[in-house]
Amino acid sequence: MKDEIRIAGIDDASFDFSSKEVLVVCAVMRGRNILEGVLSTHVTKDGMDATDRIAEMVNNSKHREQIRVMMLDGITFAGFNIVDIDELYIKTEIPIIAITRKIPDLKSIKNALKNLDEAKKRWEIVKKTGALYEHRVSKGKNPIRFQMRGMSMKIAQDVIEKTIYRASVPEPIRIAHLIATGISRGESTGRV
Amino acid sequence: MKDEIRIAGIDDASFDFSSKEVLVVCAVMRGRNILEGVLSTHVTKDGMDATDRIAEMVNNSKHREQIRVMMLDGITFAGFNIVDIDELYIKTEIPIIAITRKIPDLKSIKNALKNLDEAKKRWEIVKKTGALYEHRVSKGKNPIRFQMRGMSMKIAQDVIEKTIYRASVPEPIRIAHLIATGISRGESTGRV
Repeated sequence: MKDEIRIAGIDDASFDFSSKEVLVVCAVMRGRNILEGVLSTHVTKDGMDATDRIAEMVNNSKHREQIRVMMLDGITFAGFNIVDIDELYIKTEIPIIAITRKIPDLKSIKNALKNLDEAKKRWEIVKKTGALYEHRVSKGKNPIRFQMRGMSMKIAQDVIEKTIYRASVPEPIRIAHLIATGISRGESTGRV
Repeated sequence: MKDEIRIAGIDDASFDFSSKEVLVVCAVMRGRNILEGVLSTHVTKDGMDATDRIAEMVNNSKHREQIRVMMLDGITFAGFNIVDIDELYIKTEIPIIAITRKIPDLKSIKNALKNLDEAKKRWEIVKKTGALYEHRVSKGKNPIRFQMRGMSMKIAQDVIEKTIYRASVPEPIRIAHLIATGISRGESTGRV
């Protein structure tokens, strides 16, 4: 795999109790260093539209044909607006890596979903997202955990290796996070 | 000068006739490659508050003490909200380079200002911004034109050399532009 493949990192912005629509940012990177474009959309807080909005954002972009992999910061956006990575892969035909910083506590997710409409459908999406893989990055202390669609384990690991720099998450996710929080809060947060 | 000094690139977002407040984005870069933080604020379209808002944004940031140079995409933001680089330098104590893509047509600027309140004060700011310098970048075709405060010509040229990559503008400005237009339009524009 070339070092300079295009990868789209996708993360959501901060929001508060009064928010209805939440900003979602996509950083289109060439390799791990060069930011080539920025896309944005909005998804409903605790809604069911994240999959469609993200697919539209990417499919409508002039960068669409260059993007080889989408990297999501987890599968839950804007509260519990859960991305169905099967659907997203079908709609975009772009392989997906969803990075997960901690091992999801499925029991507490299931409990939280009970307070929302379409709880059963949301839970089905969470369950079918499937196996959580771990990759121990050659220069990192902590393993990167991820779920994926549309590529082999070997390619997913290669993409993660090539996009990790000094932080504990791949650069496309780090950059999307900085932009999303910098715009929504006035200053980016250093979580990643 | 170290290659990895912190430079803040600042640009405004797209806006339309109905806009009152316009997004301004600051990309805090380490050298020309690493995005370390994103700041944002809003300024009034055709207002007089760009200098104060930008100074506040930078002075309130946790990156404040690391930033060695601010690079502005010109001195006019959000229409004719003109940045007073003397004031901005006094308020932040950070040297400033304002990049200008084309030679300003002062006559047409003066004419346009006539339609705004405080036209005389705006014109005074434009005039006192002072000399337009040119630097022919070693690997570029076109010269970079700029105005500046708070540093020697030699240092300004050195900063420009170190931050030019493949584009015709320094990376901190290119990145701030991608973010600002990507958020305001849904997809960044490739002007730079």
